[in-house]
Amino acid sequence: MSLSPSVRIDRFQRRAAQEPDIIALGGGLPDPSFFPTRDLGDAFFRALHRPNEALQYGWPEGEFELRDWIALRLRALGAAVGPKDVVVTSGAQQAISLLASAVFRSGQSVGMTDESYPGAIEVFRRAGLTLVPWHDRASGYYVMPSVGNPGGQSMPPSVRADLLRRLQREGSFLIEDEAYAESCFEGRRERPLLAELPESVVHVGTFSKVLCPGLRVGWIATKHPALQRILAEKQQADLQASSLTQRIVAEYVAGPRFDHHLERIRRGYERKAKVMRAAVLAALPGFRVQRPRGGFSLWLEHVDPEPYLDDLTLLNAAVRHGVSFDPGRSFRIRESKRLAFRLCYGAVAESLIERGVVRLAEAWAEVRMLTPRRTSPS
Amino acid sequence: MSLSPSVRIDRFQRRAAQEPDIIALGGGLPDPSFFPTRDLGDAFFRALHRPNEALQYGWPEGEFELRDWIALRLRALGAAVGPKDVVVTSGAQQAISLLASAVFRSGQSVGMTDESYPGAIEVFRRAGLTLVPWHDRASGYYVMPSVGNPGGQSMPPSVRADLLRRLQREGSFLIEDEAYAESCFEGRRERPLLAELPESVVHVGTFSKVLCPGLRVGWIATKHPALQRILAEKQQADLQASSLTQRIVAEYVAGPRFDHHLERIRRGYERKAKVMRAAVLAALPGFRVQRPRGGFSLWLEHVDPEPYLDDLTLLNAAVRHGVSFDPGRSFRIRESKRLAFRLCYGAVAESLIERGVVRLAEAWAEVRMLTPRRTSPS
Repeated sequence: MSLSPSVRIDRFQRRAAQEPDIIALGGGLPDPSFFPTRDLGDAFFRALHRPNEALQYGWPEGEFELRDWIALRLRALGAAVGPKDVVVTSGAQQAISLLASAVFRSGQSVGMTDESYPGAIEVFRRAGLTLVPWHDRASGYYVMPSVGNPGGQSMPPSVRADLLRRLQREGSFLIEDEAYAESCFEGRRERPLLAELPESVVHVGTFSKVLCPGLRVGWIATKHPALQRILAEKQQADLQASSLTQRIVAEYVAGPRFDHHLERIRRGYERKAKVMRAAVLAALPGFRVQRPRGGFSLWLEHVDPEPYLDDLTLLNAAVRHGVSFDPGRSFRIRESKRLAFRLCYGAVAESLIERGVVRLAEAWAEVRMLTPRRTSPS
Repeated sequence: MSLSPSVRIDRFQRRAAQEPDIIALGGGLPDPSFFPTRDLGDAFFRALHRPNEALQYGWPEGEFELRDWIALRLRALGAAVGPKDVVVTSGAQQAISLLASAVFRSGQSVGMTDESYPGAIEVFRRAGLTLVPWHDRASGYYVMPSVGNPGGQSMPPSVRADLLRRLQREGSFLIEDEAYAESCFEGRRERPLLAELPESVVHVGTFSKVLCPGLRVGWIATKHPALQRILAEKQQADLQASSLTQRIVAEYVAGPRFDHHLERIRRGYERKAKVMRAAVLAALPGFRVQRPRGGFSLWLEHVDPEPYLDDLTLLNAAVRHGVSFDPGRSFRIRESKRLAFRLCYGAVAESLIERGVVRLAEAWAEVRMLTPRRTSPS
């Protein structure tokens, strides 16, 4: 039985996760040693003092105090939004999933960067949308302006300006996925696009990357008139995000530790990113890799546009060499023959990063030798 | 601006919830004084000992230990399922929402009881399904066999047998929503329909009614081949249910208190149900009401099929008299002129139930007097 690539990738990842000898450079997970476990424990106990809120049903839009904090934080970055412009979601993935049907209609097109978040790509495809490069005219756009996934890059100011002009000219809208924005190594500086056009930009955020993913708390913030429809879909999807984890986050961010915590994890991820990039430059000279601005991962592309070797073949060899990664195909909006993949430093112990990259280089050397260089058909 | 009924109902409910003088007999909430707050606190503490599981990303199908416990519990009721047949969802609402698109196709029909859970009705309508009475032939069925919502009734054995025969004959499937099953006053006895036809019955359950809703932990259990598609949709919808609240539930149910807790809350809800039903029989003689078998609410229908008064008019008057309820229209799969509504005893203090019903009777007396009895057009 031949398996679909996504099922094959899933099996690789599961095998890698269960195999203690495999250094998992895939998955995009945050570092559990960065989770503020003790402070979240304190926040939980404060939350339990109000069991009527923490354990009971709540409104579909989410906890008021949490929405208020999210709006406050966005206002500090220049976006004129209030708590009524915020809907709390069960993570950023749910935000994207709701938007795929609440702001798009099947058959429309979504403009995206060439590589993007696989969870968004899959949701958009399933919603019947056509994925087109962001510079083409589209019904709406999906971008990660501050810190992109997979490569950790930010959008150049000229691209931001161009997109904003087009939103106004075309009367279209843009989903701004800022899931990784707070992980930006230098601290967050950029104004969100939401600040420029609050009625055309739908902002998506999450606590998964900076607190922990297990809470499943994200949000949508916008003055786009679709917010009421988004809220109705949220209610149909799962009634509301967890009251308990919302209260835990609300109690945590009301305390004094969040900004200090952010600084600590930014430094931690920046250090790991440097270690990994240095290892890649040393061990995998045939690959291009940029310096990330934030996030948990690097995006590697082979210099040869047609290296006659696909990412799954390399992954197969890599797992035999004791290392795994995320195949490039999951991140692409269009097929490409250029070999590419995502390497995650997020959850890997700093001491294992270099070893993982070296194992990958060994796997690469092996498959390159074994794979005959075919002549392309003319 | 004229508002749609559901928006009007939503506004009524919100006003009622924020107004301390209104006795809210709507909403379908569990009693927060029944939440096992201290034991959940202990479970949280145990969960935090494994931060790598409680706070990190998990697999889309959910926590193994929790799925194992759910399967064990179902096996004890006769259903031959294992942990691999279970997907943990963000509450039962998400289970229904996923099933609406993963086991049905737009344009198909769903057979339901005349009154049913509004969250399911809305999801099915939005998915493009036609709602038909369960005794008509349908593409698939949605029923609450043990304890129905709104009325707390169980399906008669003859109806269960008839449905099972038809599933086999038609090769169709059935969604068995057992959200309230564990609240059954006598303790749970009935075999789930899943036990009879595990490949045609999709079982839905939740901890919302018996532990607390704020956790957002429910499940789907089935041997129906659509489970893989359901899992893929679950992943696209929100990646996974909260790792933290899953671990809290897993730790809680692994302890010795769950069955004792169930007994305690069953007795509590049974007592409240009796108080409310006695008050209704005394104060609202024109309404039919059955004795509930479990759940949090009663379903009242006027004896006159056309009382020339709609549920929203009555609700408006009721709120003026300091009481609210759930209008009957939200629960119906087809329009009906017969006045009906749901009265919830779940979250109301026992001492307030009678007063609430008396206020409602006063509102009813007032609107009856003010509403001229029209002659129906011939």
